[in-house]
Amino acid sequence: MIEPRLLLGSGPSPVPQRVLDALARPTIGHLDPQFGALMDEVAELLRATFRTANRVAFPLSATGSGGMQAMVDTLIAPGDMVVCGVHGLFGERMADALGRAGATVVRVEAEWGRAIETERLVDAWQPDMRALFVVHGETSTGVAQPLDGLRDAVGEGLLLVDCVTSLAGHPLDLDASGVDAAFSGSQKCLNCPPGLAPFTVADRATNRLSRRSWYFDLEAILGYWRDAASGGARAYHHTAPINMVYALREALLLVGEEGLEARWARHATAHEALCRALGELGFERLAPDGEQLSSLLCVRVPEGVDEAAVRGRLLSEHGIEISGGLGPLAGQVWRVGVMGDGARREPQARLVEAVARELGKKASDPLAALESGWA
Amino acid sequence: MIEPRLLLGSGPSPVPQRVLDALARPTIGHLDPQFGALMDEVAELLRATFRTANRVAFPLSATGSGGMQAMVDTLIAPGDMVVCGVHGLFGERMADALGRAGATVVRVEAEWGRAIETERLVDAWQPDMRALFVVHGETSTGVAQPLDGLRDAVGEGLLLVDCVTSLAGHPLDLDASGVDAAFSGSQKCLNCPPGLAPFTVADRATNRLSRRSWYFDLEAILGYWRDAASGGARAYHHTAPINMVYALREALLLVGEEGLEARWARHATAHEALCRALGELGFERLAPDGEQLSSLLCVRVPEGVDEAAVRGRLLSEHGIEISGGLGPLAGQVWRVGVMGDGARREPQARLVEAVARELGKKASDPLAALESGWA
Repeated sequence: MIEPRLLLGSGPSPVPQRVLDALARPTIGHLDPQFGALMDEVAELLRATFRTANRVAFPLSATGSGGMQAMVDTLIAPGDMVVCGVHGLFGERMADALGRAGATVVRVEAEWGRAIETERLVDAWQPDMRALFVVHGETSTGVAQPLDGLRDAVGEGLLLVDCVTSLAGHPLDLDASGVDAAFSGSQKCLNCPPGLAPFTVADRATNRLSRRSWYFDLEAILGYWRDAASGGARAYHHTAPINMVYALREALLLVGEEGLEARWARHATAHEALCRALGELGFERLAPDGEQLSSLLCVRVPEGVDEAAVRGRLLSEHGIEISGGLGPLAGQVWRVGVMGDGARREPQARLVEAVARELGKKASDPLAALESGWA
Repeated sequence: MIEPRLLLGSGPSPVPQRVLDALARPTIGHLDPQFGALMDEVAELLRATFRTANRVAFPLSATGSGGMQAMVDTLIAPGDMVVCGVHGLFGERMADALGRAGATVVRVEAEWGRAIETERLVDAWQPDMRALFVVHGETSTGVAQPLDGLRDAVGEGLLLVDCVTSLAGHPLDLDASGVDAAFSGSQKCLNCPPGLAPFTVADRATNRLSRRSWYFDLEAILGYWRDAASGGARAYHHTAPINMVYALREALLLVGEEGLEARWARHATAHEALCRALGELGFERLAPDGEQLSSLLCVRVPEGVDEAAVRGRLLSEHGIEISGGLGPLAGQVWRVGVMGDGARREPQARLVEAVARELGKKASDPLAALESGWA
């Protein structure tokens, strides 16, 4: 059948048995009062995880990239001018999606592997612009983009954020940062299978929602995901992915049980420990100190190592998935997920041992470095 | 936790334990060779179920309504003229989605509860039009729309079909009917949880795909879902909903094990049997003979019955979900799913007994009618 894998790549991440068990609970109807109660709970858990009081907070019935599409389809109109930070594949992707939607895109770029200087984003902003978009956690490079200073810069404009890989793994407080809309994915630091896009829009940004997409019509979706407090019956829009919502609820409960700040701290520790251990094996982190994304460690593969071959053997011989580089970094880097249950000592030790073996090196020093990072 | 329900509404339908078990298998990566093999298998199973040889046949990472959106986003451009059959909510929905996308919509309507005369659809067609769309199985009315005669009428234009509720439950042969593109949903006659939209496009229709949506970019998705025969590596587009694809595969295997024609026949038998049984209780089918959709029985509620109250008690006291009417039929009809494992004698008997009890009638005659239908 399916041979299990230790998922230490760029996502999906390891899914706890509790989440898989929740996924397989009996399917019920999308208008069943039992499901309504569960929706209210999921929305509330999402608000806590996003750190927002936004009314609109729910999982879109699509993957993380569908969250990006929903952001474009509902908040950007043809002709809008948008500043788009591009320092990796996911910034490129958003620039692409914005262009397809007829927006005028002002790109502010940084080298893949670096954060974009806030000043350059601020300088690119003009008062007649609609939105400024940044990728908070660049999955292609393992870089965290600071959000400080952006809210003030955009004034009446929208601050839009991709937090697919950062949510619940790297410090993020949407309301404190003044974010107007954000999307995430279920399969990264939330440790849920892929298929849902946690999504939120600030109440102040819901006054000019485009309804050009039927599927990604936030007004209509909100009529279904309305919170109990808003009164009135839920209006059918589309059939929610019931079982995936069960799983997301369980995953969010796990986040709540650990505590968001404790979880961020654990991810930071796990990142640092693994970085030390892989450093002992000759792998150097791409992101400079202070710019690293806790939940994704992107390292340069040492010269002389056939990265694709070793990565293939990690999968086939050791059952461990890690990810290769994308775009200009293809063949040069590995991307190692440090996400949820992947951000723990034991799976990391398994990876470090396997890498050492495949490189014909001793595992003792890197394992000691891992231990010291966790100590 | 979640109290199980007997799902005899308009969908989701009863999910077999085998499908739930598949859903909960360990998550693996979307680029894992194991998943690639599974994708090839799912595409092939989908082709068999759609009865098509189309290269493009895969589950979109969205619900059935997302399949509709993908059809609009990729096959219809602003300014296109489209004939849209409207004889229920799902035709209305498509007309709405087409209008939002900037198409000029020529509506051909029929009363809710009737099929649209083919001649009227054909008469509405003009040679400079882009597409003709019909809902093959109207979930809001339980009516099947014949596809015969439409292919010849549209010539170089596109024949587009919503088969959300009919796929694998009501006779449908996409290639024999000359359908250019069709979408379905996982949660109807396939008995999979909601969350995926089986989708197919004929090779001849892929030469003018719009790429205005990033998420619903069929060219790009096909680069990931490419069949083994086309050679080359799968190109990452978005992270597939791994576990939902496991479940869909299992659901499609169940269809294949039964045989598509045997399954259609069972649905027709189940529909007829339930129709007789509910007839004994005073419920009359909305669709006239010959226009009924096997997989959904829509019946008029007898005068004097408080349909919402009885329907509520079926759910709360008997754990059985059926659906009420939509739009102009709200308060007047019940919609009873006859889908996959819901199209069997035992669950139908449970429903018939519960309805009889709630109406204060004897169950013996309606149960005998059910038996005679199954005999």
